[in-house]
Amino acid sequence: MKINVVESVLKANDAVAAANRRRLGAAGALALNVMSAPGSGKTTLLEKTIPALGAHRCAVLVGDLQTTRDAERLGGTGAAVTQINTGSGCHLSATQVAAGLDSLDLRGIDFLFIENVGNMVCPAGVDLGEHRRVVLLSVPEGDDKVAKYPTLFQPADVILLTKVDLLGVLDYQRGKVYEDLSRINSRAPLIELSPTTGQGMDQWLGWLKRQRDERAGQSARESV
Amino acid sequence: MKINVVESVLKANDAVAAANRRRLGAAGALALNVMSAPGSGKTTLLEKTIPALGAHRCAVLVGDLQTTRDAERLGGTGAAVTQINTGSGCHLSATQVAAGLDSLDLRGIDFLFIENVGNMVCPAGVDLGEHRRVVLLSVPEGDDKVAKYPTLFQPADVILLTKVDLLGVLDYQRGKVYEDLSRINSRAPLIELSPTTGQGMDQWLGWLKRQRDERAGQSARESV
Repeated sequence: MKINVVESVLKANDAVAAANRRRLGAAGALALNVMSAPGSGKTTLLEKTIPALGAHRCAVLVGDLQTTRDAERLGGTGAAVTQINTGSGCHLSATQVAAGLDSLDLRGIDFLFIENVGNMVCPAGVDLGEHRRVVLLSVPEGDDKVAKYPTLFQPADVILLTKVDLLGVLDYQRGKVYEDLSRINSRAPLIELSPTTGQGMDQWLGWLKRQRDERAGQSARESV
Repeated sequence: MKINVVESVLKANDAVAAANRRRLGAAGALALNVMSAPGSGKTTLLEKTIPALGAHRCAVLVGDLQTTRDAERLGGTGAAVTQINTGSGCHLSATQVAAGLDSLDLRGIDFLFIENVGNMVCPAGVDLGEHRRVVLLSVPEGDDKVAKYPTLFQPADVILLTKVDLLGVLDYQRGKVYEDLSRINSRAPLIELSPTTGQGMDQWLGWLKRQRDERAGQSARESV
């Protein structure tokens, strides 16, 4: 009985996620589900990324248990931002994202960033309707997290090792991260990043633009 | 229907938690549920705490999705350690703790540390049978986390602000943490801690010993 209920909840989520993906694709927006532990730097990354994307137009859905602090921080970027408060919910759901999309004018949006609730476990298995999965891992969290949270890293399309400016002051073995990723997810590129110093930002912005071009090419083929 | 299932699961958990608490109390052990985001320093804290408790005997149950890395690290402390792998489970349950207790010889144990899965959301509402709740918050996670994850901080008995040795290299406003805690949980002491430099360790060890003495006094009164 318990399993049936959980399965039906997940099936319902997946149907809404598929509808979100169609809706975003039709609007020409590339949607990215941005996931990490609390405090890995998701909001800081978006604060630096959105202005650096220049002429590309961005929108953000930002999930948090409570407060509108992240939305307030992101409001300064010029992007359209909607905060979704989950109460005690440990991840965003496709239904919450659908409601968030209703609040945004999607016309002319190139990138939709969905900043998930800070959590390395629960968001991993929940499709929101995104086209790409972005996972952040910050240096101060320690070099053992890929092996300890494989369900998050396995389906990632790109992995951002953030706060690399702290490598000099912490005992951190980058080799362990590369080694664990070679077993768990050798498909996704790992970008070493510091939004503070700017390190890795060009590589990240290049990756983002390539994903959008790929997606646009795919949509054109699908519509032939 | 969905709500009934969730409620019955929580009720079943609470019954097992109550039995765990009785069993631990009868053995004379103080049980602490140690919770935080991934990488806040739970294992490092225990690595430093257990030897510093001197003649007090300790045991550890450590929860992780996968790997036995934390148990291996803690094996060096001389404490009895049992690793509990939750697979994709986002928190420990009272039943998992009960099984963990079966694996330990509780006679003569003064402190049982239960290191929960790294997660600021899901472990908060789940009673494991502990006597005290310890919540860690690390400086690199940012100064906004108390307000953003109130369900974790509200029921905490002590809050440890860890990695304070990084205050000098990060833009961190301690005042925000104190201000948010004054609204959310003004009962629990906040201890600024760095297991690396030793700052705050005396205060933390003193807190631990007082909790054990209080608990022992309470048990003596209950048995009269």
